[in-house]
Amino acid sequence: MKLTRFGNPGSEKPAIIAADGTRRDLSGTAADIAGDVLSPAGLRRLAEVDVSALPTVPEDARWAPCVGGVGKMICIGLNYADHAEESGMDLPPEPVIFFKATTAICGPYDDVEIPRGSSKTDWEVELGVVIGSRAKYVDQANALDHVAGYCVVNDLSERDFQLQHSGQWVKGKSHDTFGPLGPWLATADEVADPQNLSMWLSVDGHRYQDGSSKTMVYGVSHLISYLSRFMTLEPGDVISTGTPPGVGAGQKPQVFLRPGQKIELGIEGLGTQTQRTVSA
Amino acid sequence: MKLTRFGNPGSEKPAIIAADGTRRDLSGTAADIAGDVLSPAGLRRLAEVDVSALPTVPEDARWAPCVGGVGKMICIGLNYADHAEESGMDLPPEPVIFFKATTAICGPYDDVEIPRGSSKTDWEVELGVVIGSRAKYVDQANALDHVAGYCVVNDLSERDFQLQHSGQWVKGKSHDTFGPLGPWLATADEVADPQNLSMWLSVDGHRYQDGSSKTMVYGVSHLISYLSRFMTLEPGDVISTGTPPGVGAGQKPQVFLRPGQKIELGIEGLGTQTQRTVSA
Repeated sequence: MKLTRFGNPGSEKPAIIAADGTRRDLSGTAADIAGDVLSPAGLRRLAEVDVSALPTVPEDARWAPCVGGVGKMICIGLNYADHAEESGMDLPPEPVIFFKATTAICGPYDDVEIPRGSSKTDWEVELGVVIGSRAKYVDQANALDHVAGYCVVNDLSERDFQLQHSGQWVKGKSHDTFGPLGPWLATADEVADPQNLSMWLSVDGHRYQDGSSKTMVYGVSHLISYLSRFMTLEPGDVISTGTPPGVGAGQKPQVFLRPGQKIELGIEGLGTQTQRTVSA
Repeated sequence: MKLTRFGNPGSEKPAIIAADGTRRDLSGTAADIAGDVLSPAGLRRLAEVDVSALPTVPEDARWAPCVGGVGKMICIGLNYADHAEESGMDLPPEPVIFFKATTAICGPYDDVEIPRGSSKTDWEVELGVVIGSRAKYVDQANALDHVAGYCVVNDLSERDFQLQHSGQWVKGKSHDTFGPLGPWLATADEVADPQNLSMWLSVDGHRYQDGSSKTMVYGVSHLISYLSRFMTLEPGDVISTGTPPGVGAGQKPQVFLRPGQKIELGIEGLGTQTQRTVSA
């Protein structure tokens, strides 16, 4: 299934994408694409719905972030060897974890704000993993059982805020609109191999990122098991698994976003996002 | 007002502490101590309630975390000069921000888990600031208008996970039960000066921390204004403002928690917490 949400911020409703590509309103069946709806039992229940009988979502309805009520937005740093190299950082001996503020989450086509005082706003196409069931101290062998599905994430970053203002990356990762999610959550059964998905990102039509999840250093099952040693993962938590090479900070000379630009990004089978940049 | 919550995890209800010290059930008036209930209008509405007429909460009901639906648990590092010194770290030129997983939040008397593989679980008494209204790009002069109230936080930390496993402190801050909140949220009008509150922490009766919020490097109004440059603060977000000297890692020799110990901590006017340590 391809699950999504529609409507304005604060009044989003759940939807499912029909075989003909139209969005169908799921609000008669599920409260939201969130929490227990993402559990194996919740997804089985959605799979029984006759999608063709559901009301069509108006075409002009906003595409909302494809997951609601995200409790934790967990990001993995430097998880592609060649991205670590372009960032001038050593490949970490264990996964680097940081959080993005959940208030940064937005829809896949929402405008992206360039923060006030920003000189280095940057892009990062990433494979997002949406948790479907509680995970604490899980083995790698069982880790993928806890995945509800996958989606595209743009892990926007302000490099100066991230690196030049006294430690901890959170300052550069948490601005409003720095976390577009979607357009849809593809349930795990739709993704044959999360470690073999092509992914790309362009700005104003110039292709900067062109990679594949097959070059991830720490794969999805490793990350879930590893994370579950340090915190409990809950349904609706999102793990953004790191970005392949081609970020703005890695260009020679460096290139950063300014208001009025168009970002496009996508991952094989997970759809594409488009954002316009605007001043905060 | 002193606001709190009671009941088992997942079924907590709001309560208010009456003049006689008993907890009174607010669930007929408010859905939770969370979100818009914490706004100026929401708190004014609670202030009109005849507390003496409310049902008494059973004495043996669990004290839950005093705020529900916490969207972000934001912590400030090295915010007391002498704590930075005992940690062997320089005083930061700007506040250090990190997130604690919201799944780490627990009640003030809940057991605290020592994570598997932990050798350095440590304590930190901290003044918690609970946000009452949305704050983005707010001036320091207006920052305190966004505060709903204050509470005690124990910012538990696993120092080895925090510092020795590839960057970013989140790994050592996010274990379940590493964020006891409460016993109550004292609304801002009850706290004459948040920068002049004595605070203390003992383990097995030995007093390790004995400080005051007056030695904070960056005060509450500065922190709110500063944070609001990097992320939007929302009602129910909690800022844990850093700890005074006396953490286990700062002892000579260092002292860390092991299962079977008793932690007690408190802040002037905000009540006391007690936790037993147990194995995860």
